[in-house]
Amino acid sequence: MLLIGNELLSGRTRESNLHYIAEYLGAKGIRVAEARVIPDIHQRIADTVNEVRKKHDYIFTTGGIGPTHDDITAESIALAFDLPLVENETIANRIKTRTPRDSTLTNRLRMARVPQGASLIENLTGGPQGFYLENVYVMAGIPSVLRAMLPTIDIASCAPLHSCSLEVALGESHIARQLDEVQRQFPMLEVGSYPFVRDGQIGTSVVFRGTEIEQLSAAFDTTRQVLLRLGARPTSETFDWDTS
Amino acid sequence: MLLIGNELLSGRTRESNLHYIAEYLGAKGIRVAEARVIPDIHQRIADTVNEVRKKHDYIFTTGGIGPTHDDITAESIALAFDLPLVENETIANRIKTRTPRDSTLTNRLRMARVPQGASLIENLTGGPQGFYLENVYVMAGIPSVLRAMLPTIDIASCAPLHSCSLEVALGESHIARQLDEVQRQFPMLEVGSYPFVRDGQIGTSVVFRGTEIEQLSAAFDTTRQVLLRLGARPTSETFDWDTS
Repeated sequence: MLLIGNELLSGRTRESNLHYIAEYLGAKGIRVAEARVIPDIHQRIADTVNEVRKKHDYIFTTGGIGPTHDDITAESIALAFDLPLVENETIANRIKTRTPRDSTLTNRLRMARVPQGASLIENLTGGPQGFYLENVYVMAGIPSVLRAMLPTIDIASCAPLHSCSLEVALGESHIARQLDEVQRQFPMLEVGSYPFVRDGQIGTSVVFRGTEIEQLSAAFDTTRQVLLRLGARPTSETFDWDTS
Repeated sequence: MLLIGNELLSGRTRESNLHYIAEYLGAKGIRVAEARVIPDIHQRIADTVNEVRKKHDYIFTTGGIGPTHDDITAESIALAFDLPLVENETIANRIKTRTPRDSTLTNRLRMARVPQGASLIENLTGGPQGFYLENVYVMAGIPSVLRAMLPTIDIASCAPLHSCSLEVALGESHIARQLDEVQRQFPMLEVGSYPFVRDGQIGTSVVFRGTEIEQLSAAFDTTRQVLLRLGARPTSETFDWDTS
């Protein structure tokens, strides 16, 4: 994921799309390999796109596709692919049908410019249109618009990732060795340990992630038994076997 | 900034340190050039550190310095610098004074391991200790701990960045050309345009950022006059001249 925008790096705007997209893709069995937050600088965007599009199956970008001078993502993607920026007729016609023919139209037509050969990403909210070129999907930064665009993209699903977790009222240091053993016993799973403080009480959330529900169940039960032997009992247990 | 942790890429945890650190550094005149969210994989962390530490003045990392098997940031930084991971006596002594001498101590002492030659980052909360090596600052991922660590780091201040902004109840498309002209007139400033919807009404927030207050004031006044001529008046004006 490439999260594009000066406002994300200046502290003006709190980035909030990574979390949403990660959950959305996780349900399709797709792991986010990395995310980068980068500024609105043509060459930086282009270089980053060219670096990552060869390394990963999908690249999703957010931000910079509006009508103002600081919306430079389309230009930068064209630069990355060394393609001319052209007016997409479909997008231009949509903009024309809903805009009065004054100076606003000229500004809005900036949003119809895409790298030559790019395909449309639908946006039923009526805002800017996204586009994709090879494996690079260019979307809006405004969360509500992004959320409308995502489901219109045809993304191949993989074996879905499942997770389960348990919480215990013990600090990480008390269960670190035991969790290490569980991780070694189940190398195909990802065992995460996340400390928290709630009502002044330290606790640990242990999260198991993987594609095989049987393995997840076994790792969960093993950890549960280990904790009971330590004299602690889980204060919360969660299973996310949803395969939708 | 390197934000390290599988949980940030899986959607389990909402990343929240970037925003805080960006504001903190902005007040010192330091711009965040880029941020990367990467998983808990030794080689990925090491390679990323080695790529970015040559490009930027400071590298700040968050996450992965706790006592469990999935806390691998210290090991990964040692790998990046090709240095052995050693027990830091200062950190080890602090851990020993506040831990009972049972198996918990062994687990906690994992947090005393730093790359040889690293210096301590103070943590008055009593949690894990951070460290730095050359220009790489390794901090906790837990927001409260991170916030305690940051002010203890001696970061040179630059000419502070200031900002001002105004909001207007007009969509971006209505003022795009005018903003483009303002940006051209004030090339040393960063003029950002951010659409919003509030109470069903579309609006635009225009943000000016730069080091020179006179220029910011001039750009602000110019934009204000332009908007008044368009028949709109700013609905909100903000000046952040704070030089602390």
